[in-house]
Amino acid sequence: MTIGVCYFPEHWPRERWERDAEQMAEAGIEYVRLAEFSWAVLEPERGVYEFDWLDEAIATLADHGLKVVLCTPTATPPKWLVDRHPEILQADPDGTPRHFGSRRHYCFNSPVYRRETRRVVSEMADRYADEDAVVGWQTDNEFGCHRTVRCYCDDCAAAFSDWLRETYDDVDDLNEKWGTTFWSQRYDSFEAVDPPRPTPAEHHPSHLLDYRRFSSDSVVDYNRVHAEILRDRDDDWFVAHNFMGDFETLDAHAVADDLDLVTWDSYPTGFVQDRRAGAPSMDELRAGDPDQVGMNHDLYRGTNDAPFWVMEQQPGDVNWPPHCPQPGEGAMRLWAHHATAHGADAVLYFRWRRCRQGQEQYHAGLRKQDGSPDRGYRDAVAAASELADVDAAHVDAPVALLHDYDDWWAIDAQPHAPEFDYWEHARTYYRALRARGVQVDLVHPETDLSDYAAVVAPSLHLADDERAAHLREFVEDGGELLLGARSGVKTPSNQLHEELAPGPFADLAGVRVDQHESYPADVDLAVETDAGSRAVSVWSEWLVPDEDTETVATHTTDLAAGTPAVTRAPTDGGSVVYCGVWPGADLADELVSGVLSRAGVATTDRLPDGVRVNERDGLTWVSNFTSDPVAVDAPDDADFRVGESSLDGFDAAVVEAAASDLSVRRSP
Amino acid sequence: MTIGVCYFPEHWPRERWERDAEQMAEAGIEYVRLAEFSWAVLEPERGVYEFDWLDEAIATLADHGLKVVLCTPTATPPKWLVDRHPEILQADPDGTPRHFGSRRHYCFNSPVYRRETRRVVSEMADRYADEDAVVGWQTDNEFGCHRTVRCYCDDCAAAFSDWLRETYDDVDDLNEKWGTTFWSQRYDSFEAVDPPRPTPAEHHPSHLLDYRRFSSDSVVDYNRVHAEILRDRDDDWFVAHNFMGDFETLDAHAVADDLDLVTWDSYPTGFVQDRRAGAPSMDELRAGDPDQVGMNHDLYRGTNDAPFWVMEQQPGDVNWPPHCPQPGEGAMRLWAHHATAHGADAVLYFRWRRCRQGQEQYHAGLRKQDGSPDRGYRDAVAAASELADVDAAHVDAPVALLHDYDDWWAIDAQPHAPEFDYWEHARTYYRALRARGVQVDLVHPETDLSDYAAVVAPSLHLADDERAAHLREFVEDGGELLLGARSGVKTPSNQLHEELAPGPFADLAGVRVDQHESYPADVDLAVETDAGSRAVSVWSEWLVPDEDTETVATHTTDLAAGTPAVTRAPTDGGSVVYCGVWPGADLADELVSGVLSRAGVATTDRLPDGVRVNERDGLTWVSNFTSDPVAVDAPDDADFRVGESSLDGFDAAVVEAAASDLSVRRSP
Amino acid sequence: MTIGVCYFPEHWPRERWERDAEQMAEAGIEYVRLAEFSWAVLEPERGVYEFDWLDEAIATLADHGLKVVLCTPTATPPKWLVDRHPEILQADPDGTPRHFGSRRHYCFNSPVYRRETRRVVSEMADRYADEDAVVGWQTDNEFGCHRTVRCYCDDCAAAFSDWLRETYDDVDDLNEKWGTTFWSQRYDSFEAVDPPRPTPAEHHPSHLLDYRRFSSDSVVDYNRVHAEILRDRDDDWFVAHNFMGDFETLDAHAVADDLDLVTWDSYPTGFVQDRRAGAPSMDELRAGDPDQVGMNHDLYRGTNDAPFWVMEQQPGDVNWPPHCPQPGEGAMRLWAHHATAHGADAVLYFRWRRCRQGQEQYHAGLRKQDGSPDRGYRDAVAAASELADVDAAHVDAPVALLHDYDDWWAIDAQPHAPEFDYWEHARTYYRALRARGVQVDLVHPETDLSDYAAVVAPSLHLADDERAAHLREFVEDGGELLLGARSGVKTPSNQLHEELAPGPFADLAGVRVDQHESYPADVDLAVETDAGSRAVSVWSEWLVPDEDTETVATHTTDLAAGTPAVTRAPTDGGSVVYCGVWPGADLADELVSGVLSRAGVATTDRLPDGVRVNERDGLTWVSNFTSDPVAVDAPDDADFRVGESSLDGFDAAVVEAAASDLSVRRSP
Ligand SMILES: [Mg+2]
Ligand SMILES: [Mg+2]
Ligand SMILES: [Mg+2]
Ligand SMILES: [Zn+2]
Ligand SMILES: [Zn+2]
Ligand SMILES: [Zn+2]
Repeated sequence: MTIGVCYFPEHWPRERWERDAEQMAEAGIEYVRLAEFSWAVLEPERGVYEFDWLDEAIATLADHGLKVVLCTPTATPPKWLVDRHPEILQADPDGTPRHFGSRRHYCFNSPVYRRETRRVVSEMADRYADEDAVVGWQTDNEFGCHRTVRCYCDDCAAAFSDWLRETYDDVDDLNEKWGTTFWSQRYDSFEAVDPPRPTPAEHHPSHLLDYRRFSSDSVVDYNRVHAEILRDRDDDWFVAHNFMGDFETLDAHAVADDLDLVTWDSYPTGFVQDRRAGAPSMDELRAGDPDQVGMNHDLYRGTNDAPFWVMEQQPGDVNWPPHCPQPGEGAMRLWAHHATAHGADAVLYFRWRRCRQGQEQYHAGLRKQDGSPDRGYRDAVAAASELADVDAAHVDAPVALLHDYDDWWAIDAQPHAPEFDYWEHARTYYRALRARGVQVDLVHPETDLSDYAAVVAPSLHLADDERAAHLREFVEDGGELLLGARSGVKTPSNQLHEELAPGPFADLAGVRVDQHESYPADVDLAVETDAGSRAVSVWSEWLVPDEDTETVATHTTDLAAGTPAVTRAPTDGGSVVYCGVWPGADLADELVSGVLSRAGVATTDRLPDGVRVNERDGLTWVSNFTSDPVAVDAPDDADFRVGESSLDGFDAAVVEAAASDLSVRRSP
Repeated sequence: MTIGVCYFPEHWPRERWERDAEQMAEAGIEYVRLAEFSWAVLEPERGVYEFDWLDEAIATLADHGLKVVLCTPTATPPKWLVDRHPEILQADPDGTPRHFGSRRHYCFNSPVYRRETRRVVSEMADRYADEDAVVGWQTDNEFGCHRTVRCYCDDCAAAFSDWLRETYDDVDDLNEKWGTTFWSQRYDSFEAVDPPRPTPAEHHPSHLLDYRRFSSDSVVDYNRVHAEILRDRDDDWFVAHNFMGDFETLDAHAVADDLDLVTWDSYPTGFVQDRRAGAPSMDELRAGDPDQVGMNHDLYRGTNDAPFWVMEQQPGDVNWPPHCPQPGEGAMRLWAHHATAHGADAVLYFRWRRCRQGQEQYHAGLRKQDGSPDRGYRDAVAAASELADVDAAHVDAPVALLHDYDDWWAIDAQPHAPEFDYWEHARTYYRALRARGVQVDLVHPETDLSDYAAVVAPSLHLADDERAAHLREFVEDGGELLLGARSGVKTPSNQLHEELAPGPFADLAGVRVDQHESYPADVDLAVETDAGSRAVSVWSEWLVPDEDTETVATHTTDLAAGTPAVTRAPTDGGSVVYCGVWPGADLADELVSGVLSRAGVATTDRLPDGVRVNERDGLTWVSNFTSDPVAVDAPDDADFRVGESSLDGFDAAVVEAAASDLSVRRSP
Repeated sequence: MTIGVCYFPEHWPRERWERDAEQMAEAGIEYVRLAEFSWAVLEPERGVYEFDWLDEAIATLADHGLKVVLCTPTATPPKWLVDRHPEILQADPDGTPRHFGSRRHYCFNSPVYRRETRRVVSEMADRYADEDAVVGWQTDNEFGCHRTVRCYCDDCAAAFSDWLRETYDDVDDLNEKWGTTFWSQRYDSFEAVDPPRPTPAEHHPSHLLDYRRFSSDSVVDYNRVHAEILRDRDDDWFVAHNFMGDFETLDAHAVADDLDLVTWDSYPTGFVQDRRAGAPSMDELRAGDPDQVGMNHDLYRGTNDAPFWVMEQQPGDVNWPPHCPQPGEGAMRLWAHHATAHGADAVLYFRWRRCRQGQEQYHAGLRKQDGSPDRGYRDAVAAASELADVDAAHVDAPVALLHDYDDWWAIDAQPHAPEFDYWEHARTYYRALRARGVQVDLVHPETDLSDYAAVVAPSLHLADDERAAHLREFVEDGGELLLGARSGVKTPSNQLHEELAPGPFADLAGVRVDQHESYPADVDLAVETDAGSRAVSVWSEWLVPDEDTETVATHTTDLAAGTPAVTRAPTDGGSVVYCGVWPGADLADELVSGVLSRAGVATTDRLPDGVRVNERDGLTWVSNFTSDPVAVDAPDDADFRVGESSLDGFDAAVVEAAASDLSVRRSP
């Protein structure tokens, strides 16, 4: 397992590069990512290329044994290109262009921009096809950042019509599948269907869902333009992309089909502030939420069922969240361990040195702007040294958590409660699994499930018979399934199923949803299980179990009191739990523990909040995201490869033992 | 009194229609509304009409004895029409078009759209002029929903100039009446006056008020296009429109002049969430606020001084409020009774069956999407059965509450406190009246007042001598008048009167406003009456009573302490109370009770919150909008026509007795 | 010292003018401002001038001994001009024009508008060049009000390119100074640089800063157009402009270079509501915050180091804040005294009479709309009478507080915490100084500092060696310097300095910033000084003192605990305190008191909140902005020129004594 760094030599005098390379090598760094956002430096005028600086930078790094990952520079089209072809700019729904002056201002569907992309990527690929130090590529950067997956320009309007033409038999098929009789929304032709522009009332949900699919597919296609050129030039280097955390609008499963390596960019103390419900605690401001970060690790590991990289790892304080406390002492080391524990093979800190120019001056690097080492540098050196001795194969998870971007998009279009966030809801189940020390793959519902002992499906919202058959096969083979609220409600085209929810899953789950309701998050709702009263919130379904289906929890809140809220249906193989509420942490633990127990998955005792254990290839990482010390009880013969059984705040340890053989408690 | 339903046969296979009609007839349904939003189905291409499906739907319903109300389908112009004439689209103030993709995307002033409207309405009217089952029409649907009364397109700009030309003698007259010397806002011609587009600072209030009048008048004119064609074809059918609740931008008094029947759409649990200050209680999430709903009933009953219909009645959970709890057990029955009690002759539930397509999939129907009965169906059947035996004439109210849309628009343009909402302020007085079991007509200030014993005018903001003379006549005839804060401040053109407020009403009310102030809602303000200290909020006027005017309440808050806050002026006839504050519930009760007592209007004891009684033609309805049971004390010989003297939560009863002979209390 | 009023005779019948002038003279008014916003009345059609009404108004006033200040009427271009030249309108960043219908709708860079400005100003100046009653001019009105300093129209785009061309050697110089290598933001030409229009992500901070400079400079240039014409016609009259309070976007220092007299518009109870963090107390709703108001007085006095005027003084309740309580009894008199105490030579109430037309009908005048005296009138008469006897020279302040608009703009572009407001942060120090009764000049950092004993520089964010040398000279001459957080971070072009903060000031301050962090305002942070624990908030720097530098305060909050937070470096002259936190009131007092003490500046005991003393030319004003009475302890022989030693709520007194010889306490 290894460490790397993102480096922008073009921001610093060439005289400095040699010393930078030396210091990187001393620090134990193996990989250096280069050339991101460098288009205007590589091609200052159209057709005039200046590669010498990059040649020299690569050579300098290679001289010190460092391996280079290059980026295609397309996330930032230069001003000369925008001036010549303003039609490459994205547009807001109301037609306002997204102008030059920051980044990601190009449209994925612009024919001109695809041509220019081919040109610049080809030039770079040709240049470095024989350069041994270059081991791989990152396509572009963070596709879709700053809400740019969805564009509403004229090129997109035309491309959307084409996409619809390829998706539907004919326009009558579209009218039928969407259901356009409602509010006279019938279309005569594919050309007549516009992007969802400003309208007096809300948009048709089937229209919205298809525009979201189309937009994601546009990025997939655009990424493929890069991948094909790069592969064509050199089979040895890998093609990667750096995805983002808790990111809704782009289907990473689909993009990953064109990638050799999936990577993502991890900024734990930013994520707790800007993409999670609830105010962060002080510990979370210092180190983030391990389950929020971990869920992304497991998503991107699951995407291609392979080790992933953290292409950008938070190196200290960052510029973009609302507030920027310093990370806890050791947090930058902790994050590298935690990522490795989840299956990362390399963790690259972003960036080598704090930049003096432009939008990210308030973003730390491993070195300060004066070149001296910053707090993250010391942590990175420690992590590099500790991980150099660790060699671990791919994570082997007994549990799958099913996730489908289409479901996210459909629920986001009609949340039916401002608090109903698809990803937050899924995270409730993920948290419960991780609090029991269990490894989890986040995978697409169509994944082969035969190797999993248990499957948790928080919300399989869009459903058809094929998806139901796939799950039935898993359960009949003995698998244990937990199916969450709002499953089986809609057709794949976002129409309501005529049969009651969970629609195609109803027979398998042995239950029907009589009613659904939503509440403000501050309304106290509860259900009762054998173990007592359990808090739930926001979403409530009134269940009607089939005859053979057992009631696991019953509503106790006024109008619904006495109505089943969670059920379990036995089958000849495993059983199916259906949970018609958004469970609180205790109910989620109870349901998940039952599923794991029946599935024969070994677990830990319930872990303290903020403390997690991860098993990978016989090694177990203990990660302490809190400022309190914790103590690990391990088997007597277990060898601590990193750290020891007493962990400080924000500390990590690695022990040769199964996760379920450990127990962890806060030190007294 | 009777029950109906809104039905969209075009969303379901024809094979189902016969069964639907049967089930409607069994349920006791009398009226079925059809063809709303059906333009694209009726005319799939321009000039190609397909009426056969509607013929068959009508025939099927008629065969089961059901009566049909048809809708002109203009709320949803089809895509082919928008593509051919994009100029029919509305525009936002900044010029952004309001595109196709939802509904209500047409401009009321578009000459093209008026021509197309005439065409499609004529075709429909011709088709069904001789069809006996069709008893009436709804024009369009919910004029102005989704903030569409006010459009800012080029057609509207031209129409506004024309409207001004008809309203003012010449442009000098406009300059004089508006007062355009201020900030050099003088106009040379009517053409020079634009719609109120984005400006650096706020708009001229006279400009704003006239644009609001013009916009409302544009809808009035557009509705008349429908009404004239429909009446021309068949004198027997009625012409109706379905208005909305707590709706500011359209003058229902003016639209109603062209209607035979006024109807509105009542969604109690949505209204408490999205158009009322303050978070709803759990009971209100279950059944709504009876005074919020009742005030709309009384407005639309008062509009043409005739029984009204609820054209759409909430049938269960709905899709558009932030949260969607299930209504209380029996709430759908309660609402039908409550509406009837307020003067409705028919209550149509929206909709027959939950729709599988488009924007309203989360909106319940009386039947679920699989055709099985939903919660509302059982309530509707009960209501139909109970109301079938009830026959009641028009409500006879002893009190008028004066309401003028122009006042609403003027105060909304210059609220002088974010919390000062004209309608909320008026509702304070309405609530006090309803809490005393008194029937109230909401009427325009120019209405003949001679039959009322008392008049409450919460805020007659715009005033002239004619309006003052009208009130003086009422008072001199012995009427009791309560005049609220901010009355008589402005001319009808929204200039400040040169004389101090209440301007033209000052002599009648025997008082002058020395100062006015506003405060955040959380600042505690109080006044003192003979009965003690009384909370008030947000708005405070310092009054100077005339010599013969009595002080009813005095400010007790620091700076204003000792200054009169409420006064009463005797006349040779009745007396005039002027209330210069926004009263809390207790002060409102005290003032209103005094007025009613002097006017000789019989009242109940103050009713519990959420429990109301309504008298109509010798019958009194008791409506319990709370989850607690209540007990009714009625005269010994009073016959309970529906229910009994003990009411469950969300229950209703009908008793043969005067409202003032009842008393209602929460059961112990 | 004297009193004046703003008057709009054109809003009232000519018959009234004579009486108005009489009443003004009786009230003790000396100055009357006229003709603001009067363009459409002066020139109703292009080239057709109507000056007779203004001639008559001036003559009427002059007959009563009143002096006239005229306004150029350019804040409100008439509709005929907009219709003829719509290109004069400003534009929002997305291109939406800022239309006619309010005020300030013209672009400062429009060549057409500059031509029209020259024309109308010349006509007016010619007309009144020989009119003795006209003593001076106000250019336009409140440049930049309603967020209009920054325009994004095509004329501005072209002017911005020109501005850049004049500012930088060539485009490579711009690329270098901005640092456009970041995110490929390199420009080929000055023409290629656009205004900061809507972009996917945030703008480049150097681009933003220069656009803010350019925008401010555009106003400076536009003001000069007025000033040159007016001076050319008559050397005797003064040229003034009326600035606004707490106003960020326009560099008053720069505009003032072209003015003879600096004035501003003071609305205390509005300011506490709409331009200050924290909800106002009831006392503040009644009289405002004396330090918020005072800081503007001291800014505009410091701008040209000369007495200033309050050109518009709040006369009572006003229309534009969220809420509009009546000012406290006497507050309008208090404000006139308080302004005079801070160095005003004249205070003009806005306006004479409440206006019946347009946007400001809810804005009080000294007289009500019916012509009768309003509350402010009585206060104004008292102030006029009391101030008539007071004659005081310019305020002589021993302390300078350094303020640079460029710093404000740079920090606003990258606040790094939503709560970090440059002006609020500076006000913390200002408040501490004023709470010790010390006079403060707010001056630009390049001001000659040699006459000051102490300098407080809350945040000298942008810095170069020249600025550092200027401060070094002050300190080495014996001056005491307090340098606050975020100083010396950036180059003048808004790049990060390569050396650690405080960059060019580091050697002088004897300290380096190791880390900086930000926190939500509700996170409790603290430091420890010799005096105990002291609350701080939002911003925290970890300091590394040089060997000879003393630690004054140490962080006590977890991660930073033990790290220096405030330091003091001795020099051969004075010493330099560096404060790396946003201090709470107690720490600010402790630091400021230390500086004043070392600098030998006499102070009062710490004054009660809301009570302030100001010394001017041997007289000391006591201003009580609270509703509680206060008692003044003065030397036995001190003469109370106005009031006495016991002050009521909202009262003022003037005593012949040094401020530091007084002590003030709330009466028991
Ligand atoms: Mg999918
Ligand atoms: Mg009216
Ligand atoms: Mg400056
Ligand atoms: Zn596009
Ligand atoms: Zn229009
Ligand atoms: Zn401009």
